[in-house]
Amino acid sequence: MSRRACDTLIRADRIVTQNDERTIIEDGGIAIAAGRIAAVGPWMEIDAAWQGETVMNLGRSMVLPGLVNAHTHASMTLMRGLADDLPLMEWITQHIFPVEQKLTPELVRLGATLACCEMARTGTTAFYDMYLMEQAVAEAADATGMRAVVGEVIFSFPTPAYANLDAACDVVRAMHDTYRNNDRIRTAVMPHAVYTTTPELLTRTAKLAEELDIPLHIHLAETTTETAQCMEKFGKRPVAYLDSLGLLSPRTLAAHCVDLTDDEIRRLAETGTRVAHNPESNMKLASGIARVRDMADAGVVLGLGTDGACSNNNLDMFAEMSTCALLQKVATMDPTVAPAQQVLDMATRGGAACLNWPGIGSIEPGNLADITALDLDQPGLMPMYNPASHAVYAASGGDVRMTMVGGEVVYRDGAFPKVDYPALLAEVRSAAAWVRKQFEGNGK
Amino acid sequence: MSRRACDTLIRADRIVTQNDERTIIEDGGIAIAAGRIAAVGPWMEIDAAWQGETVMNLGRSMVLPGLVNAHTHASMTLMRGLADDLPLMEWITQHIFPVEQKLTPELVRLGATLACCEMARTGTTAFYDMYLMEQAVAEAADATGMRAVVGEVIFSFPTPAYANLDAACDVVRAMHDTYRNNDRIRTAVMPHAVYTTTPELLTRTAKLAEELDIPLHIHLAETTTETAQCMEKFGKRPVAYLDSLGLLSPRTLAAHCVDLTDDEIRRLAETGTRVAHNPESNMKLASGIARVRDMADAGVVLGLGTDGACSNNNLDMFAEMSTCALLQKVATMDPTVAPAQQVLDMATRGGAACLNWPGIGSIEPGNLADITALDLDQPGLMPMYNPASHAVYAASGGDVRMTMVGGEVVYRDGAFPKVDYPALLAEVRSAAAWVRKQFEGNGK
Ligand SMILES: [Zn+2]
Ligand SMILES: [Zn+2]
Repeated sequence: MSRRACDTLIRADRIVTQNDERTIIEDGGIAIAAGRIAAVGPWMEIDAAWQGETVMNLGRSMVLPGLVNAHTHASMTLMRGLADDLPLMEWITQHIFPVEQKLTPELVRLGATLACCEMARTGTTAFYDMYLMEQAVAEAADATGMRAVVGEVIFSFPTPAYANLDAACDVVRAMHDTYRNNDRIRTAVMPHAVYTTTPELLTRTAKLAEELDIPLHIHLAETTTETAQCMEKFGKRPVAYLDSLGLLSPRTLAAHCVDLTDDEIRRLAETGTRVAHNPESNMKLASGIARVRDMADAGVVLGLGTDGACSNNNLDMFAEMSTCALLQKVATMDPTVAPAQQVLDMATRGGAACLNWPGIGSIEPGNLADITALDLDQPGLMPMYNPASHAVYAASGGDVRMTMVGGEVVYRDGAFPKVDYPALLAEVRSAAAWVRKQFEGNGK
Repeated sequence: MSRRACDTLIRADRIVTQNDERTIIEDGGIAIAAGRIAAVGPWMEIDAAWQGETVMNLGRSMVLPGLVNAHTHASMTLMRGLADDLPLMEWITQHIFPVEQKLTPELVRLGATLACCEMARTGTTAFYDMYLMEQAVAEAADATGMRAVVGEVIFSFPTPAYANLDAACDVVRAMHDTYRNNDRIRTAVMPHAVYTTTPELLTRTAKLAEELDIPLHIHLAETTTETAQCMEKFGKRPVAYLDSLGLLSPRTLAAHCVDLTDDEIRRLAETGTRVAHNPESNMKLASGIARVRDMADAGVVLGLGTDGACSNNNLDMFAEMSTCALLQKVATMDPTVAPAQQVLDMATRGGAACLNWPGIGSIEPGNLADITALDLDQPGLMPMYNPASHAVYAASGGDVRMTMVGGEVVYRDGAFPKVDYPALLAEVRSAAAWVRKQFEGNGK
């Protein structure tokens, strides 16, 4: 019997498919053709049926669908550790915004390129990104081979990227045009938050998302301060306010959702609004603890995100999974809450739903070949009884040995095949000197 | 001018000394002689004054004092991920204890050897360990080159290591004898907890610690369940109960201390009792959130520990630092609480105090050469503005490139010079099959 040709065959000790049945395959194989998963199963069967141009034997590795970072600001890596241990409003208005107003597209691209390397190195294959001059983030994701939903952040005040709302909408249209035929980069509409926008702006952006038929992403209900301000300015709590403007829908991904009532959780579930949970950021900024158990019980579609590197301070989704599970247990005083499988689902299948991107989040025939592999020979991953437990509680991004997006390797054993990494590091070092100067000029 | 001879010269981009002034040295050097730090300073000065038999140029690395894991059960790595998402009392009595009753010294040694590799690989140089058949842990630490305070766990019921309290005390005496001239291994007396011992046992162990002039270590106030049981059985809350038996003193290290009143915090501070905080274990088992801010404010000597790999599920002290800081911020709803420097202090200088081991926890002339180095070329550690922030918020154990104990390298760039690592992995795999069988035999 002749074998069918494919581009790459992967062999590994364990394959955690994250398919509907959560099948785990021992000594498994994956056949990849044209950037997609052609077949997955026991190595004996895959090897008998497929002939790979390249065979990647990952040996004692655990292969997982690439993790999906459902909320980040990639370029903020350039400000990693610049201002810590501060409250959100002081942090964002006095430290982050002033530096951001001086950013250039080159710096945004540089920070995003660094972030893409960090994500690839730590097992993330797709991310949902909001920032200013986002075109540069799209270019960085494209160049590094990452999958991304990108969107220019829209405020009610001017930024280096646009002078007013009309111009901001033009930026979104132009990006959507540029990437409409790109199979790894998609555009979304991204009003920043209820406390940095007007009702008119929110309505306009919602219409734009519908018109272009693309997703919408916004920060929502991050702190009680946000709620209080929203009550004062608009007479409604943030969720009700967005609801009244027609912004709750399966098209919308809301980041944070920390300060929620039972009714609001029900409403998020009813409307199909997706929620990106960001536990490390919420902890570091003391924003509060999102009601993940209650949201999951109510049927809210949940993903997991790192938020930007300033409020985390890394983009490691393995660490984020662990924090997510541990925080929910202690917050509810119930160790059975947020079990490993549920949290792994949030970081994979849930992330796919947040990005509105079917075809990622699980290793199944027909899906995109977005894959990562943990090195099971690391002492911290020995022995292994339960793969989901390992991924959530034991692993860190440092245990990743290979990451692939659409069949293309973006990280393997210390190397980034699509990036001139030494040159990148040199550029980041010189940019960091500039950032530090801006920051110090800001009176800190 | 002729240079003085030393064994090893280390050069690195940053040296975070953790000395009294928290000096950070750019392009620094460390001279190491006879297992101790002979000198530390700018590379130009160190290089001019010292001639090293070996020169270790770590380039773009951040060198730190080796982290101190103030509370763990190293051998529990063998049960990593075997039983997750369960409450503490069910977890320990129905899942952990039954398997532990069947352990052999060979398995304890194997698990501890794996743990020592994991700790070395993730930047820990010293650990405070409580387990049964602890002699095997001591042997593992000795063979792998790690620094450890070890102690046979003492229950009021028989274990595979002893039939009764007299025999348990003999085990402690014998270990103390064996290691009295070892400069890396020290013995302590370790009654398990108030809920697994009697007043007589606690009094006896305290006297033994005094007689041998060695430390005492106990689990304390881990859950409200423990408090309730202690009230019912002994009419006192755990801290008052230990106090009444004379067990609170600078000799004593208490692990957990989650359920504490203001008065109890004051009493721990007054008596100089050391506390090992274990945030990930406390979260995973939903034990609660220790009052780290209040303890620190009261002057309690605080260290940080991972607890065993079953309730964590790794021994990565970098991850533990991050969790410690983030959890305190959200628990107090104050992002300025548990700033990076304080948490780094807990994991280094505080750990040294917990182990009652002067000479570790900071890089200073005369101190032991227990050192680790983070790879600053990792994308997740780029750029760097603030070394303490990096160590606590951005780094993970996977970023460690070298760890040294008493001047001897125990991990470097993927290799464990003192361990036959492939043979260890093979042994752990076969032991894991045995553990799984015991566990399943236990009706799970
Ligand atoms: Zn955000
Ligand atoms: Zn313990």
